[in-house]
Amino acid sequence: MMTESEFLAALRTLPLHNGARGLNDDCALIKVGEETLIFNHEVMAEGTHFRPEADLADVAWKLVAINLSDLASKGAEPIGILLGHSLGGNDQRFIDGLREVLNAYNVPLMGGDTVAATGASTYSLTAIGRATSHSIPSRTEAKLGDSVFVTGTLGEAMLGFEGFEAHLRAFNRPTPRLEEGAALAPVVGAMMDVSDGLLLDAFRMAEASNVSIALETAAIPVADPERRDECIRWGDDYELLFTLPQGTKPPVQAALIGTIEPRGFVPMFVDSAPVTNPEGLGYQHG
Amino acid sequence: MMTESEFLAALRTLPLHNGARGLNDDCALIKVGEETLIFNHEVMAEGTHFRPEADLADVAWKLVAINLSDLASKGAEPIGILLGHSLGGNDQRFIDGLREVLNAYNVPLMGGDTVAATGASTYSLTAIGRATSHSIPSRTEAKLGDSVFVTGTLGEAMLGFEGFEAHLRAFNRPTPRLEEGAALAPVVGAMMDVSDGLLLDAFRMAEASNVSIALETAAIPVADPERRDECIRWGDDYELLFTLPQGTKPPVQAALIGTIEPRGFVPMFVDSAPVTNPEGLGYQHG
Repeated sequence: MMTESEFLAALRTLPLHNGARGLNDDCALIKVGEETLIFNHEVMAEGTHFRPEADLADVAWKLVAINLSDLASKGAEPIGILLGHSLGGNDQRFIDGLREVLNAYNVPLMGGDTVAATGASTYSLTAIGRATSHSIPSRTEAKLGDSVFVTGTLGEAMLGFEGFEAHLRAFNRPTPRLEEGAALAPVVGAMMDVSDGLLLDAFRMAEASNVSIALETAAIPVADPERRDECIRWGDDYELLFTLPQGTKPPVQAALIGTIEPRGFVPMFVDSAPVTNPEGLGYQHG
Repeated sequence: MMTESEFLAALRTLPLHNGARGLNDDCALIKVGEETLIFNHEVMAEGTHFRPEADLADVAWKLVAINLSDLASKGAEPIGILLGHSLGGNDQRFIDGLREVLNAYNVPLMGGDTVAATGASTYSLTAIGRATSHSIPSRTEAKLGDSVFVTGTLGEAMLGFEGFEAHLRAFNRPTPRLEEGAALAPVVGAMMDVSDGLLLDAFRMAEASNVSIALETAAIPVADPERRDECIRWGDDYELLFTLPQGTKPPVQAALIGTIEPRGFVPMFVDSAPVTNPEGLGYQHG
């Protein structure tokens, strides 16, 4: 058995499509004539990504939403989805949640596969989108002097996971930032969604862009200021993290939380303290 | 818990993309300018689609090959694949098999997701292709008077599954009929791959085309003539089943196995015996 990063390293030795961006990005791209199609594939497994007692309507919603969140980070508009479904749970609830999320974001089902699997359920989804902007953001374009922004409030999903009524929706039914992503794509430097926790994903952006990100934690909007540190490490918030040239006002509601500095000896500073490695920064997804 | 056909019926009540063809076809289509992209998504689950002791190199090969077989039935050439991988088996063997099949069919990896799942492993794959012909075959275009053909020899996968050395490859490492599919797409009426067994898939083609298919079993090339009946019911052969106007010679090696007749009271005749329903005709996949 390999770890996820060993497996990813092995995948990088295979023949890769140019649009895979070296498997360093969240989505794959295919140029077709004047258009660029954007692809994302995510899997949710019982026991790893959702609790066995979870309402499958929420799981279906979240499966679609997390894929659309990746499309949002490219400024893409969704075209459709392909679903891989394991029968055996409350399949009617899964259908109910799927209907709600497809209607909410006006995304049609295109096809897929249904299997009678044994044991824990696994659901896979491919989301297909169309770039709305000529420039398609990546993690690699953060530039010296840029300002760093994030949409929304971090930590809501954490509080929802813990059972706080007001935040249940943030955990169970996240909102992909499709409109924000489309508005930002033409103007941002780097952009990504922050599914694994703000600190960890900011660290990854800095690494990919070969810069250093200096964050001011007091500037980060959090759901519970007394637990600020947890809010910015816990994942599942599906907000957009992006950079703009200094002084540029973002076209969407977002908080200025830091700046891009030269790559010195570390890729990140949190309140001026250097961060040398990503261990413990956030949620390293299985 | 729903059955597969109940779940499929429920999916058909969701918002569907035009290119989903009502979820009645193997692939989904997206027109982009002058091009048509073709999508297929298949899942393979341990215990359902492969034995726990299977070599994961074979599983990786087969996962890619069965998706490419669906692209072949549309006359598509592959562009790339997205992989959903459960860590926990012999992941290195999976990588080895993936490398072999991607090299064999010149298909690059585009991206995907890796999960640390609990319990039985599930692998999902989306194959993306490009139509090579202006006309893209479906199951619905079998016409009265057409002749019915099939490529290859049926039953080899069955014998491979049973352990016959000479046929192991047919079961473990099927060959998607990509070249044949591309040669056939411009000329065929209906076309599909025969993954679930020739009789069952022919029945489905007849239903989709609203005709009756009359098959002569003696004309069907089988791996073991003494077990002809099993050979034409067992699945996993990944050959192409197609129709051509009477008298037209197929551009690829294929056997003439039947004719399209008016839809009377049944969709299929096997050696003149009417077949009223698909029960027991082939392998109803989980």
